[in-house]
Amino acid sequence: MLERPQFAVVLSGCGVFDGSEIHEAVLTMLAIDEAGADYQCFAPNTWQARTIDHFTGHAAAIAGDEDNRNVLAESARIARGEIKDLKEFNAKEFDAIVFPGGFGAALNLSDFAVKGSDCDVNVEVKRAVEESYKSGLVIGAMCIAPTVIARILGKHHIKLTIGNDAKVAAGLKKMGAEHENKSATDVCVDEENKIVTTPCYMLANSIKDIAAGTRNLVNEMIDLL
Amino acid sequence: MLERPQFAVVLSGCGVFDGSEIHEAVLTMLAIDEAGADYQCFAPNTWQARTIDHFTGHAAAIAGDEDNRNVLAESARIARGEIKDLKEFNAKEFDAIVFPGGFGAALNLSDFAVKGSDCDVNVEVKRAVEESYKSGLVIGAMCIAPTVIARILGKHHIKLTIGNDAKVAAGLKKMGAEHENKSATDVCVDEENKIVTTPCYMLANSIKDIAAGTRNLVNEMIDLL
Repeated sequence: MLERPQFAVVLSGCGVFDGSEIHEAVLTMLAIDEAGADYQCFAPNTWQARTIDHFTGHAAAIAGDEDNRNVLAESARIARGEIKDLKEFNAKEFDAIVFPGGFGAALNLSDFAVKGSDCDVNVEVKRAVEESYKSGLVIGAMCIAPTVIARILGKHHIKLTIGNDAKVAAGLKKMGAEHENKSATDVCVDEENKIVTTPCYMLANSIKDIAAGTRNLVNEMIDLL
Repeated sequence: MLERPQFAVVLSGCGVFDGSEIHEAVLTMLAIDEAGADYQCFAPNTWQARTIDHFTGHAAAIAGDEDNRNVLAESARIARGEIKDLKEFNAKEFDAIVFPGGFGAALNLSDFAVKGSDCDVNVEVKRAVEESYKSGLVIGAMCIAPTVIARILGKHHIKLTIGNDAKVAAGLKKMGAEHENKSATDVCVDEENKIVTTPCYMLANSIKDIAAGTRNLVNEMIDLL
């Protein structure tokens, strides 16, 4: 293991309903820093599938409309501008790659929210995950983001959790993955494939639980290095 | 002191360059939850002064343009939709009120970033802080947000910190407040006026420091209840 493990954090926008879940993203960064590791944020340079007014809960615009937003520019808000286009991701520079949740994972990184197990995955996300897997990086995902990993790596019979939602778990199985029911702050560890997942806001009711879940995830990822 | 102290968290958008600093906001919410207290988020229902592309660092639009954003709708991203219009804030329902930083405090809650010590303050922010002061709530502010408190309560000879920036400190003094130099995670406590402040990203270099600073702030606020 390197003295300070290097994590790539892949974001999908900024806000639970159309991008990265902000608490999960921030607390992942905190857990990495507190574990004595470093992180670099990335996001695909693409348009959001939709933009949701998070106060009303209604769609503010759809792709093509004037209020459309860019995933990289919005993700940069969580990263305080310290973010790179996912095109620049090179697996050789990292020990681990981690995907916080939020609907952005199922709308912008993939279209799982629309097409379920037949979803397409953003080309740069697919490349990053495939290269990470081949290069032996530890892969982490939380909340709904394990669906993206399942779509790319399901053929390797990986084991994941998204909590205990039967419908999403069935989708994971269709994509070739094994699903393990877990409670909010617990972690599913696939040692063979070096994949670590945790439910976060698929089940959690408080931000304290998200701090615990992300800390558990990051610590298990470091144990696998 | 109530069994579970009730905190109001006042946000100013979503992103360090034109809204609330996201790490400070999220870690304030975490510190409140971990201290065994409850929080309710608020934001003024008004337009952002400007919108900054956080990837390029350049202005994306100004007020009146088609890409303009609403402070309440953007703040709702940090709060996962669980947020109220600041108009609904009633000091009698809370024990404490806290303002995370980010340029939104100096662009949307006030225009300190433009006018300095002659700044105007959003009318609902002014009302909320004045009612909180009169009702004996503990008032917290971090990063650049103490400038807003100084503009409203400077006449009471309050004591604050924004770290050690001489220019901003001079602005605070012009507004009637006393400034105390502090390091990144330290807290300035004005016991008489029940005001607690900490520098956060005015000085901090890592998210770990923000977790420490917000935790110190929230714990000092609870000690004053």
